Amino acid sequence: MLIAIDAMGGDLAPYEIVKGAIIAARELKVAIALVGHPEAIQGTFQALQKEGLGHQDLDIKIVPSYQVVEMGEHPATALRKKKDASIAVTARCVAGKEESLPKADAMVAAGSTGAAMASALFNIGRIQRVIRPAIAVMLPSSVAGKNCMLIDAGANTDSTPDMLYQFAKMGHVFMKDVRGIAKPKIGLLNIGSEPGKGNAFVNAVYPLLAEETGLNFIGNIEGRDLFKGVVDVAVCDGFSGNIALKSAEGLAGMFSALLKQELKQSWQSKLGALLSKKAFAGVKKHIDPDEFGGALLLGLRGNCVIAHGGSKAGAIVNAVRVAKEAVQAGVLQTIHSDLAADLGADSLEEGVLSL
Amino acid sequence: MLIAIDAMGGDLAPYEIVKGAIIAARELKVAIALVGHPEAIQGTFQALQKEGLGHQDLDIKIVPSYQVVEMGEHPATALRKKKDASIAVTARCVAGKEESLPKADAMVAAGSTGAAMASALFNIGRIQRVIRPAIAVMLPSSVAGKNCMLIDAGANTDSTPDMLYQFAKMGHVFMKDVRGIAKPKIGLLNIGSEPGKGNAFVNAVYPLLAEETGLNFIGNIEGRDLFKGVVDVAVCDGFSGNIALKSAEGLAGMFSALLKQELKQSWQSKLGALLSKKAFAGVKKHIDPDEFGGALLLGLRGNCVIAHGGSKAGAIVNAVRVAKEAVQAGVLQTIHSDLAADLGADSLEEGVLSL
Repeated sequence: MLIAIDAMGGDLAPYEIVKGAIIAARELKVAIALVGHPEAIQGTFQALQKEGLGHQDLDIKIVPSYQVVEMGEHPATALRKKKDASIAVTARCVAGKEESLPKADAMVAAGSTGAAMASALFNIGRIQRVIRPAIAVMLPSSVAGKNCMLIDAGANTDSTPDMLYQFAKMGHVFMKDVRGIAKPKIGLLNIGSEPGKGNAFVNAVYPLLAEETGLNFIGNIEGRDLFKGVVDVAVCDGFSGNIALKSAEGLAGMFSALLKQELKQSWQSKLGALLSKKAFAGVKKHIDPDEFGGALLLGLRGNCVIAHGGSKAGAIVNAVRVAKEAVQAGVLQTIHSDLAADLGADSLEEGVLSL
Repeated sequence: MLIAIDAMGGDLAPYEIVKGAIIAARELKVAIALVGHPEAIQGTFQALQKEGLGHQDLDIKIVPSYQVVEMGEHPATALRKKKDASIAVTARCVAGKEESLPKADAMVAAGSTGAAMASALFNIGRIQRVIRPAIAVMLPSSVAGKNCMLIDAGANTDSTPDMLYQFAKMGHVFMKDVRGIAKPKIGLLNIGSEPGKGNAFVNAVYPLLAEETGLNFIGNIEGRDLFKGVVDVAVCDGFSGNIALKSAEGLAGMFSALLKQELKQSWQSKLGALLSKKAFAGVKKHIDPDEFGGALLLGLRGNCVIAHGGSKAGAIVNAVRVAKEAVQAGVLQTIHSDLAADLGADSLEEGVLSL
């Protein structure tokens, strides 16, 4: 199994990315193609070698690319200008149409989610019959070992009910085949739990999910249920999903900032904070996005995992793990056959969306 | 100034409500009408008297009502059946059309926001030219003394751009006249900060806010900005606002639960927690909804403040304070003249929405 990694993406590239790639190759026993500036990657290899992290015994190759899409750039515009950007070449490895590039089973990229999505859509394309791909994010919960997949977390600004039906199906397949949950509980993100609550849009989505016998749809859920382990998949449009995700992030940031301020107020609480250090680290680890392997792009004809912009080596290793599990579980094939069974015909062409 | 309070609303009614009313009458120097079952209220008076909290020197009267809308009931259905429900009578005091009821300047109610909104809409009605009233919630932030008003937090499931324009205006008036912020910063809740981001709906709202010279519109904000003191008013449709609010609540609940779990793991952290007790209390106080005086219903022809279902006396006192400040600032008159100036004509009739 070969995983292509954009070595130049993210705030801490290439150092943390290359480091994560080496650890992932060793621990997860996968081959890795590092896409990026060869000299930058070689220089990082040497630095890591000095730190005792060698890679000579591992199956890691360099795929040259001399351009980078920066975090602030508009994804589509940047990709039109920089045809050879590392993120685009990484996606083309998964597409597997060029003899000069190794054929990869999955891609991992840190940094701009928009650039990764645009590269993947343009070069890899959608699974047949998928209207639009979605970004799926694993949320932590107060119940140990329980995560909730939020889908769509922001790939699509305007959605149709049919799209949310497909998001539910894709989330179901992933949580079943990759996470091993026999009957993943599906909830529709709404502003009340009773049927009939919410706006016209979610009321059009509800029956589509309720009438699909292949889904374990438990009904509407509210924002506060996202972190309680109530469902395995929370389905929503990308606008609402992004609002939910970022509002929760904002609250977490405020909570941490306030706690830090308050703990500095007296010597008692300073000492208390010192004694509670391990407990704080435990909470941090629990809600650390690094631990969840980043966001998944579901609905593409290739496995794509996006780590956040500030990813360190550990986040890259987790992202590679998620990518490997998705490849092994054959998630793409199952999504494809699930949606094919729904429509019963090859009515939609195998398409690549234009940017 | 007379404030009508629903003595029977909320999980801890009538005890905490009556207690809060007595404290508010004394501290804030307002007259209060307690609406509810006379015997229940009298019994609470006696119990509080024994605890040393007398009310004989205060201007507090009882307005009899023998029905209650329970938390689980559908607001409109319950109100049709229970014409004499305490929440409806409280609203009718503000409406001031019945000689048998005292004329109140504002109402305060704990419990079902839906029942309060329905009662107020039906009995008090909207300010002339207001398309739909909104629920405004004050959010805490990591910056001391800075709050952000989230409007609409869930009164309306489906909204039009014109409604959001009015929400912005109402939020502006409240933060200026009640909170004393000379030029309140207004942000549009979106999924990216650059202009042009987001769905078709917010892109239709953006120019309405940007072109209004009377508003200090700073552009799009993201969910994570809600708790950073970046804006004074965050404008959104009720669906998005409710998702943002409840997702943040959910994250806060998870954070607290995890912290409690982790602090129990060792004697060091148990001791640490004990020493940090004051710091934790400080954080809790900072994000405690009791401190913010509950939600405001803006756009009605009466001042309405809603405290949450679990309100204790302190939350009621804060809610009365907010109501008093709104009355003193003449918020309703300013909203009315602001919106009248916009439209330039009395084209819209002074209406009461049907339920």
